[in-house]
Amino acid sequence: MGITQSVKRSAQQDPEGRATSFGERSRTWHQFQERVARLAGGLKSLGLAPGDRVAILALNSDRYLEYFVGVPWAGGVLVPLNIRWTVAENVYSLNDCGASILLVDDAFLKMAGPILAEATSIRTAIYIGDETAPAEMLSYEALIARSAPVADAGRAGEDLAGIFYTGGTTGFPKGVMLPHRGLWASAAALISDVGLDRDTVYLHAAPMFHLADGAMTMGVLLAGGSHVMIPAFNPEQVMAAVERHRVSHLLLVPTMIHMTITHPKLAEADLSSLRWLLYGASPIPEALLVVAMRALPNCRFVQAYGQTELSPVATILPSDYHALDGPKAGKLASAGRAAMCCELEIVDPNGVEVPRDAVGEIRVRGPNTMLGYWNKPKETAAALREGWVYTGDAGRMDKEGFVYIVDRLKDMIVSGGENVYSAEVENAVAKHPAVSQCAVIGVPDEMWGEAVHALVIPKPGQRPSAEEIIQHCHTLIAGYKCPRSVAFRSEPFPLSGAGKVLKRELRKPYWEGRSRQVN
Amino acid sequence: MGITQSVKRSAQQDPEGRATSFGERSRTWHQFQERVARLAGGLKSLGLAPGDRVAILALNSDRYLEYFVGVPWAGGVLVPLNIRWTVAENVYSLNDCGASILLVDDAFLKMAGPILAEATSIRTAIYIGDETAPAEMLSYEALIARSAPVADAGRAGEDLAGIFYTGGTTGFPKGVMLPHRGLWASAAALISDVGLDRDTVYLHAAPMFHLADGAMTMGVLLAGGSHVMIPAFNPEQVMAAVERHRVSHLLLVPTMIHMTITHPKLAEADLSSLRWLLYGASPIPEALLVVAMRALPNCRFVQAYGQTELSPVATILPSDYHALDGPKAGKLASAGRAAMCCELEIVDPNGVEVPRDAVGEIRVRGPNTMLGYWNKPKETAAALREGWVYTGDAGRMDKEGFVYIVDRLKDMIVSGGENVYSAEVENAVAKHPAVSQCAVIGVPDEMWGEAVHALVIPKPGQRPSAEEIIQHCHTLIAGYKCPRSVAFRSEPFPLSGAGKVLKRELRKPYWEGRSRQVN
Repeated sequence: MGITQSVKRSAQQDPEGRATSFGERSRTWHQFQERVARLAGGLKSLGLAPGDRVAILALNSDRYLEYFVGVPWAGGVLVPLNIRWTVAENVYSLNDCGASILLVDDAFLKMAGPILAEATSIRTAIYIGDETAPAEMLSYEALIARSAPVADAGRAGEDLAGIFYTGGTTGFPKGVMLPHRGLWASAAALISDVGLDRDTVYLHAAPMFHLADGAMTMGVLLAGGSHVMIPAFNPEQVMAAVERHRVSHLLLVPTMIHMTITHPKLAEADLSSLRWLLYGASPIPEALLVVAMRALPNCRFVQAYGQTELSPVATILPSDYHALDGPKAGKLASAGRAAMCCELEIVDPNGVEVPRDAVGEIRVRGPNTMLGYWNKPKETAAALREGWVYTGDAGRMDKEGFVYIVDRLKDMIVSGGENVYSAEVENAVAKHPAVSQCAVIGVPDEMWGEAVHALVIPKPGQRPSAEEIIQHCHTLIAGYKCPRSVAFRSEPFPLSGAGKVLKRELRKPYWEGRSRQVN
Repeated sequence: MGITQSVKRSAQQDPEGRATSFGERSRTWHQFQERVARLAGGLKSLGLAPGDRVAILALNSDRYLEYFVGVPWAGGVLVPLNIRWTVAENVYSLNDCGASILLVDDAFLKMAGPILAEATSIRTAIYIGDETAPAEMLSYEALIARSAPVADAGRAGEDLAGIFYTGGTTGFPKGVMLPHRGLWASAAALISDVGLDRDTVYLHAAPMFHLADGAMTMGVLLAGGSHVMIPAFNPEQVMAAVERHRVSHLLLVPTMIHMTITHPKLAEADLSSLRWLLYGASPIPEALLVVAMRALPNCRFVQAYGQTELSPVATILPSDYHALDGPKAGKLASAGRAAMCCELEIVDPNGVEVPRDAVGEIRVRGPNTMLGYWNKPKETAAALREGWVYTGDAGRMDKEGFVYIVDRLKDMIVSGGENVYSAEVENAVAKHPAVSQCAVIGVPDEMWGEAVHALVIPKPGQRPSAEEIIQHCHTLIAGYKCPRSVAFRSEPFPLSGAGKVLKRELRKPYWEGRSRQVN
């Protein structure tokens, strides 16, 4: 199944049903299909050949969804760019994949000039905003208006659907090549566990370029549900959109959940239509999850864990395991179990499965796996072995198959020959009453190789001492895991586009001029 | 995704859960996985190489499910034989695909001798009954006991999963080659519309060789549900198994539904666990459906339409459209809409989509399509064109995408240049109060090319005249569609393994020595 088939089904079965709502604008499935068929015609008139890459740099909108469907309809390949990136990162990615067309909205018009000056493969830039297109760009609406609809190119199965650049938390961006079957399998795995059907009204509040939201894009398309977009996450806009469009499904990353449930306007917002809240993309503190479940008692919570290389779904923790008591309680700290689209194992460095409850690397095999990294055979060979994607995540599995993510392997600190999982240390540090946020990294140490180092943002008005934090940790975790040093800061941690702390950035000043095995 | 991955997930996530129940025997997922890994080891010890065909000729049992999983686990290809076939048909199919191993149960031991004498590619016959194995056969249980478990061969995606011989209603059996992704896509499409999950208890009452039951086999495996088998359909055994195992899901073909709901013991049977009844494989008279819905008021009804070439699901009529009133009523005569695994079009002989409500040939494209017919490039080229499977079924589609099956194209009668759909004429004839069953075919006619001919089995004690039947039809359908002749018979119509009337057999005496364009 390809992305386009879902849209043809909706246009056939529900032509007058609502496809998209964005601001004051809405379209039916009939209109949506007509527009993507014309967009595809327009892209072909610009010389798009099968397999050509079409990039987009934009905030969320209804046109972003048209892009997701129109590009494969024309036979092209998607390249959604990270909205947090610098000019240099965008240029790198565009040149890496040799994209020939770039779509840009108002938010990125200023960036477009310097990008286009250096991204030499781009032949055409298309402006997808609502104002008049700049002189050097084509107008998206004019292109659709002047182009005749074309037949769907029928890309599906093993055909390359898109190149999704990894967030850049580690080293240089890699272009993850995902086939249509991968996106379809991930979407199919979500449908029953997230209750997606034709009555679904999904709000795109997380960035559409990212596959956390992208997984729901594909799931909702496949199920025939309706799409509502806001340009970017903002708690008040989320509440307003839920009220106005009677949104039933929402995906948020943990920081967004925190901002929403602590917002002063939550009490007066009518979120009664909201039935499902999916979260993922980064670990969620259990305390936050419990508070959120109490704040939204009529909402079912579902966690998904995965990565771009898995299209992206690997595990799902279904709503019935979001229980505070009863036989299914006690699993909130888990990322769930292998989803319908894959099998999952925890293995040692030799690729041998470890016993239950032992920590090892998580690997995943199934129709959701990537084809490889674009133009990176060495990295592909390292990550994709005998059909398994090696996730680089350390985890353990309990006797019922529930997976607990322990850490990114590359964030694991090796101190005196002992493995220290930064996530575990962070959990201990965060329990100190004066700590607002923290990040734990390994720093060079002559004696131990690496030493555990905590970066702490204190709560407003609080001034804990390093000694106090370290002593606090000693009451919770083994001595070798406790920080040997603590640094305090007031500025926020650098975040990736998906809202993950960029540990690479935090480590950089400590490792200047030295080499760390994994960075 | 391959068939084996589902089993590994269940064994990982629910090791002590019930996998199979057959008679007095039941196995957990842990045991089931251990057995299929040993079965696979046994098959490999017999010389099975990747892609080798392993056939089975047996009634339903827990071992049939082990076969479905153990053969791909060993790297082999499934060939489930039709239990209605003669020796000649079995021999034809085994020789056609060159199967090297044949599994046989007690019901087919007598047939096995003559089959093995002529099926020259079979190297090993395995006895899967509970008695002592005949001298010339290996014992299945001994093979499992003596073989070490082997690692899953990991067959998936485009790999050939099985060769499923078409029922033989038309011409010689063709071996439909289905890939793992086809079976997986069909199963995924069923899951949400049939409410399959880990709590599902599915009763295999329809024959397991046939893909009607096979679709549920794959769906229940994928969802992690539990399997109960009875050797063959029998209304009393169905009721007993539902009661004993608290069966939640059942698939029956229309004739089986009829036999069950009219059974005198229905009133006293406890079918309260039954929540879903799936039906398909042949058209259901609307009157029967309504009676069944009233007889099982706590059960949701779902119809699926498809064919072997589609792994087999094409359309689904979900339970909410099984409504006798309200906004979703009025669709009972439909086979449903294109399922999640495909797109569907109604086209004219040039492959151009016809307007809504016009009759044309149904074609289907998606991940559920076959790879082709085994060793039949000409037939493959005719049925599979540009990714579309041409079903050979005539149908129409309404404005909401609901599909109405009008007839098999090859059962369509062309009389005086007009198309007559035998199903429509049969519906008219069947409404005559003295008619028990009927079948309508085209017979040679010098004036009209073909003439409409009705074969009628009267109800016990009734003796309607041909003239009376014809006059009755004139009150219901256009004159050119009415039978020009009627033949009465008392013996039942010949049926295929799936319970369809074999019209080819009925037509044969009339067309002896003549050629009909399609037969």
